Amino acid sequence: MGLVVQKYGGSSVADAEGIKRVAKRIVEAKKNGNQVVVVVSAMGDTTDELIDLAGQVSPMPAGREFDMLLTAGERISMALLAMAIKNLGHEAQSFTGSQAGVITDSVHNKARIIDVTPGRIRESLDKGNIAIVAGFQGVSADKKDITTLGRGGSDTTAVALAAALDAEVCEIYTDVDGVFTADPRVVKKAKKIDWISFEDMLELAASGSKVLLHRCVEYARRYNIPIHVRSSFSGLQGTWVSSEPIGDKKVEQAIISGVAHDTSEAKITVVGVPDKPGEAAAIFRAIADAAINIDMVVQNVSAASTGLTDISFTLPKTEGRKAIDALEKSRSGIGFDSLRYDDQIGKISLVGAGMKTNPGVTASFFEALSDAGVNIELISTSEIRISVVTRKDDVPEAVRAVHTAFGLDSDTDEAVVYGGTGR
Amino acid sequence: MGLVVQKYGGSSVADAEGIKRVAKRIVEAKKNGNQVVVVVSAMGDTTDELIDLAGQVSPMPAGREFDMLLTAGERISMALLAMAIKNLGHEAQSFTGSQAGVITDSVHNKARIIDVTPGRIRESLDKGNIAIVAGFQGVSADKKDITTLGRGGSDTTAVALAAALDAEVCEIYTDVDGVFTADPRVVKKAKKIDWISFEDMLELAASGSKVLLHRCVEYARRYNIPIHVRSSFSGLQGTWVSSEPIGDKKVEQAIISGVAHDTSEAKITVVGVPDKPGEAAAIFRAIADAAINIDMVVQNVSAASTGLTDISFTLPKTEGRKAIDALEKSRSGIGFDSLRYDDQIGKISLVGAGMKTNPGVTASFFEALSDAGVNIELISTSEIRISVVTRKDDVPEAVRAVHTAFGLDSDTDEAVVYGGTGR
Repeated sequence: MGLVVQKYGGSSVADAEGIKRVAKRIVEAKKNGNQVVVVVSAMGDTTDELIDLAGQVSPMPAGREFDMLLTAGERISMALLAMAIKNLGHEAQSFTGSQAGVITDSVHNKARIIDVTPGRIRESLDKGNIAIVAGFQGVSADKKDITTLGRGGSDTTAVALAAALDAEVCEIYTDVDGVFTADPRVVKKAKKIDWISFEDMLELAASGSKVLLHRCVEYARRYNIPIHVRSSFSGLQGTWVSSEPIGDKKVEQAIISGVAHDTSEAKITVVGVPDKPGEAAAIFRAIADAAINIDMVVQNVSAASTGLTDISFTLPKTEGRKAIDALEKSRSGIGFDSLRYDDQIGKISLVGAGMKTNPGVTASFFEALSDAGVNIELISTSEIRISVVTRKDDVPEAVRAVHTAFGLDSDTDEAVVYGGTGR
Repeated sequence: MGLVVQKYGGSSVADAEGIKRVAKRIVEAKKNGNQVVVVVSAMGDTTDELIDLAGQVSPMPAGREFDMLLTAGERISMALLAMAIKNLGHEAQSFTGSQAGVITDSVHNKARIIDVTPGRIRESLDKGNIAIVAGFQGVSADKKDITTLGRGGSDTTAVALAAALDAEVCEIYTDVDGVFTADPRVVKKAKKIDWISFEDMLELAASGSKVLLHRCVEYARRYNIPIHVRSSFSGLQGTWVSSEPIGDKKVEQAIISGVAHDTSEAKITVVGVPDKPGEAAAIFRAIADAAINIDMVVQNVSAASTGLTDISFTLPKTEGRKAIDALEKSRSGIGFDSLRYDDQIGKISLVGAGMKTNPGVTASFFEALSDAGVNIELISTSEIRISVVTRKDDVPEAVRAVHTAFGLDSDTDEAVVYGGTGR
C-alpha cells in the first residue's frame, strides 16, 4: 500500500461545493488502496479577509498574533473537509500544523520548518483514517507559539510531510493543469510540461513562474520527493517534478523547459560611484544589512575621464523604499552622486538544462528579442538559465517571441486556468 | 496588585469597532494596576456562519471535526483583540484554550472542564502582558483533541480561569447592564439588581434567565469567585453575584430577587397510567435512558373508579421528539393509554431566599396571577423558588403582574439592551 500526500490550494476549496468535490477526489485515492494525507489551505479569500480585519484594528499587526489570526483559515477548511469525507462514508481526522508535528523556528509570518514529527498522523493513518493537515502553519520549537510559513507555505508543508512520512509522491492540486512552457495567460499556445527536473523547476520558480515556489521545490529535491502538479478541477495528468522521469514517463529532457517572466521587480541604479575597490561591497553591504534580497547586478564600464561608474541591481518592488532609505543613509560612506529608481521593468528568462550542451541558445534568444523589437537593459546567466531585463510593457510580446523561436508553441490553445490562485 | 478576569461575549466584539472599544476598556483595567486576563467569544455571527458552512458539506457534522471548526471563531477574535491592545501601546498575548491549560473530558460539543493548568498565562502575566484567552474551548485530557464547552461555554472558561488564577473577580461583559428583576424586553420597569447571592442566581438561571448560565454560576459558587455582570457598552456598575455582598455593597438580601420566565419548554402528558407502584419509575427510566433532562413533574390524583392516573412533565422542546419516541417504544412495558404533547406552554418563576422566612409569598404569587386572569396548569416549588406553568401567550402579562405585585417595579424604564446575545 502506498502513501500519498495531496495538497489542495485555496481556490480548490473556495466554497462548500469545492470542498465536496475535493472530498470525492480524496476518497478515490483512498479507494485505490493508498494511505492518504491531505494538506489544505484556507478557503478562497479567507486569508485576505482576515488580513483586512487585522488592518482595521491595528495599522501594523504584530507577528505572533498575526499568525494566530491567519491560522484560523486552515482550521476552518480542514475541519469542513474532514466532515465532507466522513459524509462520504470514510473516516477522516483533521490536525493543526502543531498537532501534525510541523516544528518551525520562531520567525513569525515566515517561519522555516526545522523538523517534522508526524506521530499523530502516522497513528491516524494506521487506524485506517484519512489525515487532513492544516497547511501553512507550524509551532515554534522553543516557545511553542503558532507560526506561519509565509507565501506558498502550504506547498512546503505538503512536501515536508511527504518527506517525513516517506511518501511515494506529493500531489500539488491547483487551478491549472500543471507547469506550462510559459504563463498561459500570456502565451495562448503554451504547452503543459509532462516532466521537468528539480533543477529546471528551481530556475523557473526563481524566474517568476508561480505554480510552485522555489522553497518547496528545494525541499523536494533535498529529500528526493517526486511532486505531481495537477488540477483539482480536471482529472488530467499534470506535470511531474523529480530527479529522473518516473515510471512510463520516459521523457527525454528537453533542451528548453520553458520561458518565465516576472514583473514584480524594480531596478535601482546608483549613479556616479567612484571606480575603486570596495565601493560595490559597501553598496551591497548596506542593502544586505537591511535584509533585502537582490536579484541581478550589473556594473557599467567606467568612464576613463571621470573615474566614476554606475551600478544597477534589481530587487522586489516591495523592498524598493527600504533599499533607497538604506542607501541614502550610507551615502557619505559610499560616496555616489544620485539614485535612480525604476519600477517599470520586466524580466524574461529562458530555462533548460539542455542549454549547457547546446551552443547558440543565447544567440537565438537575443535574436528573437531583437526581431520582436525588444530592447535589453540587463543580462544575467546561469548554467541553465538566461535572463534579461526589458521595459515592463514589452514583456508579453517578448515572452511570446521567445516561446515561438524555441519551438515551444503547442498546435492548439490547450492551457486552461480554472479559478483564482491558492496560497 | 489584583488579578481580574474579564469575559467579552460575541456581541461586544462583533466588528473592528467593537474590538477597539473593548481593547480600550481592557487597557483601562490594566492601567488601574491590575493583572488582566481576558476571555473572548467569537465575533458576532461567526459561529452561526461556521455552523451553516458545516451544514453545507455534511448533514450531520461529526463531534471532533465540528469542534475543530467552531474553535476557529475565538482564534480570530482573540488574535484581533491582542493586536488592538498592542496598538494602544500595551503588551498582549493570545492563547487558545489548549495553550491556556483548559483541560476537558472528551465529550465533543459539550465537554466539561476537568482541570485548568494556566502555567503559560501566569508566565505571560508575570512578564507584564495582558493575556487573551479563547473562550468556549479546551483540549481533552486523554486524546489531546480540541473540544468545545457547549452553550455559554465562554462564561465557564472565564470563571474556571478566575478560580485557577485565584482572581479577585470575574467580570462578565455583555450587552445588558446586569441581571434584572425580570427580562427587560418583557417588563419595561425591570430593575437592575446590585447584588444577588449565588443561590438566587442559580435559581434564576435554572428558571430561564439568560444573562448567566447555571453551569457558570455553579462553578463560581464552588470556588467562591465573585462575578460582576456588566455592560461592555456603558461604563455602569452592573450586578455582583457572590456569597456575601462585596465591599461597600452592604445590601440587605431582598425578599424576592426577581421573576424569571421560560418559553423554551414543552409538556408531555402520559394519559391512563395504571396507579400502582413502579409505573412512574418505568416512565422516567425510559426518559432518562434517552439522556433527556426533565424539569417539572406532576401526577394527578387517581380516579378511584378506573384505577388510572395521568402523569405530566416538562422538558426542553428540542427533546420533545426524542421523548415521545422513547415512551412509545416502552409503551407495552409501562402500559398507558396515550401521550399528549403540548409546546404552547410557558413557565413563570419567582426567586428569592427571603421567601423561606416570609410566609404568604406563595399566596401573593397566586393572587397576582389570578388577578391577571392567568390560569395555572402545573406548580413546582423549592425552598427559594415557586414556578408555575401557564399558557405561553399568558407569560408576558403574568410576568408583569407578578413583578408589580412584589414591588419590584422601578420608577423609570431603566433597562437598556445594547446588542444581540453573545455565546
